[in-house]
Amino acid sequence: MDLNEQIQDFGRRARGAARLLSQISSAQKNAALLAMADEILARTATILAANEKDLATARSRNLSSAMIDRLTLNPPRVEAMAQGIREVATLPDPVGEVIREWTSLSGLRISKVRVPIGVVGIIYESRPNVTSDAAVLCTKTGNATILRGGSESIHSNLAIAEALEQAGAKAGLPNDSVLLIPSTDRRAVRLMAEMDRYIDLIVPRGGKALIEAVVRAARMPVIKHSDGICIAYVDAEADLDMAVEIVVNAKTQRPGVCNAIETVLVHRAVAPDFLRKLAPRFAQKKVEVRADEKAFSVLAALDYQPLRRATEEDWRTEFLDYILALRVIDSPNDAIAHVGQFGSHHSDCIVTRNEATAEQFLREVDSATVYWNASTRFTDGGEFGFGAEIGISTDKLHARGPMGLEELTTYKYVIRGQGQVRT
Amino acid sequence: MDLNEQIQDFGRRARGAARLLSQISSAQKNAALLAMADEILARTATILAANEKDLATARSRNLSSAMIDRLTLNPPRVEAMAQGIREVATLPDPVGEVIREWTSLSGLRISKVRVPIGVVGIIYESRPNVTSDAAVLCTKTGNATILRGGSESIHSNLAIAEALEQAGAKAGLPNDSVLLIPSTDRRAVRLMAEMDRYIDLIVPRGGKALIEAVVRAARMPVIKHSDGICIAYVDAEADLDMAVEIVVNAKTQRPGVCNAIETVLVHRAVAPDFLRKLAPRFAQKKVEVRADEKAFSVLAALDYQPLRRATEEDWRTEFLDYILALRVIDSPNDAIAHVGQFGSHHSDCIVTRNEATAEQFLREVDSATVYWNASTRFTDGGEFGFGAEIGISTDKLHARGPMGLEELTTYKYVIRGQGQVRT
Repeated sequence: MDLNEQIQDFGRRARGAARLLSQISSAQKNAALLAMADEILARTATILAANEKDLATARSRNLSSAMIDRLTLNPPRVEAMAQGIREVATLPDPVGEVIREWTSLSGLRISKVRVPIGVVGIIYESRPNVTSDAAVLCTKTGNATILRGGSESIHSNLAIAEALEQAGAKAGLPNDSVLLIPSTDRRAVRLMAEMDRYIDLIVPRGGKALIEAVVRAARMPVIKHSDGICIAYVDAEADLDMAVEIVVNAKTQRPGVCNAIETVLVHRAVAPDFLRKLAPRFAQKKVEVRADEKAFSVLAALDYQPLRRATEEDWRTEFLDYILALRVIDSPNDAIAHVGQFGSHHSDCIVTRNEATAEQFLREVDSATVYWNASTRFTDGGEFGFGAEIGISTDKLHARGPMGLEELTTYKYVIRGQGQVRT
Repeated sequence: MDLNEQIQDFGRRARGAARLLSQISSAQKNAALLAMADEILARTATILAANEKDLATARSRNLSSAMIDRLTLNPPRVEAMAQGIREVATLPDPVGEVIREWTSLSGLRISKVRVPIGVVGIIYESRPNVTSDAAVLCTKTGNATILRGGSESIHSNLAIAEALEQAGAKAGLPNDSVLLIPSTDRRAVRLMAEMDRYIDLIVPRGGKALIEAVVRAARMPVIKHSDGICIAYVDAEADLDMAVEIVVNAKTQRPGVCNAIETVLVHRAVAPDFLRKLAPRFAQKKVEVRADEKAFSVLAALDYQPLRRATEEDWRTEFLDYILALRVIDSPNDAIAHVGQFGSHHSDCIVTRNEATAEQFLREVDSATVYWNASTRFTDGGEFGFGAEIGISTDKLHARGPMGLEELTTYKYVIRGQGQVRT
């Protein structure tokens, strides 16, 4: 079989599995998930040996230490993977939920019922635990999964997927419920994205080039997990101590994630006081500040280091590092305008004591999550109480923000009549 | 400006309008809608004169009489257009609705709030009233609209859009809330579909070639309004008189619409009785039946006309006419399998007295709407009680089935804290 035939074959098989999976009880799905967790643990040695092959390749290619860290599995990480699966098993199953029910004027009983999406394609890079996380959330919601991981983690992914597939099948899941594309050929991404007959949704998780390739080729819905250029605005009426805590947390608690902030806007009325409080805290973490003219002079007078002048490009950059763009502005309206122009509509926050200003910001900023007096780091399925997430959608439709189990379902209308015809 | 610059300019302007529109009160939007209705009526003569130009072109191109009928405006149709706008003004505004609200473990108050999508692109063919219907539903939900109608109705569309734009602006809507692309150049469709920076959703309404062109090029979500290959299954335990009424209604009440049935499956145990009852009713309407072997012999024995032998292609065809594909099957499972294989997952129905069989069908058929003992013709925003619809989505995500006002919105999370940071 050539690559295209192989992908088509995977699609056909996944479609068949999805039909059966949609009819399986929550108890059966949960039993299969627990079996998957056991199998992952039982195969720890095999999975680590496979991971060692990926790591050897990574080292020989001189991948960065951050990349190698993300790629690395070890016994605690395998254990965590299994534990993650067990937790998903304990979550409520959204499938079958009656979202709304009413009787139409013609006497029809209409029920809007939650159902699986069908076949979900996941295209991802680097971290092998995504193989398990994604497959397990899809299984829980009765979706068949076609996984396509990055070449750098291919051996780890294959070992994990094999454990999931075999444990699932033994526990009574349909064959082909979880499929991993074994080829690392880059054309596989395009072939998957064109296969709208067999894939109902594609979720790309990875860098810009990957997401762009999927968006360009896709014929089915895509839910992107893209940039987080998150912004905090410190208002003239902010509690400055609270503002410092929020900014330090949102920038430095874990700078490499999408819900960390990249830019701080501060009202000119409080900029000197705020920066005087912030500087020592940032200095501890060696945060590089890229400041506009006004902020630069305040920080330079404080002898803050490392300090650079911001360029316009900095407002548009997701640093994912101990780097912050800083701008002094004149009003809440300017903050809202900056967020609209430069942010990525992921998570943005205002710190203020003024309720009217806060409510204006919350209303006018069109982002997946908007915060008043809290760190943007809370944009997370776990923190929201969703129990688990497949990621943070930066798209507007179907799933926006944290994408949990509910967002892996759709609905259908079930209509019960007594012989009604339309006149 | 070349076409690309023109489309980009429309996009930029619509994005600006969307930002303002999202903040406008329901009262303001409703006042603007009523002004639009008045303006449409006031300009009846202008609109009819523009329509006459389109009709002259259509006649010179020898378009079919059905096409010409769909294209034709007259005073009652203009009146109906205005009346439709007034009705939308009376509907509840979904924007601002709190869909769900809870307090997270960290004490954050999280509200999931309904908001406009942003900029909606509508690409359609033939019927000029879509210009008004689509623009008005988008305005009601705070979305800016970029319309691209077919070349055959360009003069009518321009006249209607101008009335809507000017009345809206006079009533305080932002400029550029409703934009119609004046060019009939086919490349405009591709250029719109590639412009994901400025268009958040595209809804194509039209033939297969149009929808295919949009799907192929689109970088943003597309909600297709595609085929309705709807199927009715008459079970062994059906009330046959009810089955006849449902089949006659679903096939012949309005055969040219997407929720009319194209195929009837009948259980072999009742096929002769059912067809004996159906034949005289179908004969009245001159319905051409394309029957499988078993059904053919029953109908031939009854001397039914017009009668042909079905080919496999007939199971996959949306006739949109007084033509029905008919198949005798052995079981409810075979019915479910046929619907899964040949249907378009739009609207399908079972007629039976057996509740267990009905519930199996309702559960296992994965279509936007599944009916027990009712005509598929009820798949309609009005019949569902949505008040109005932009169409019937044949896609699975975001909107499935009738797409009303709610489906023209998305949500964001508004989060209110007291200084929470993540640990």
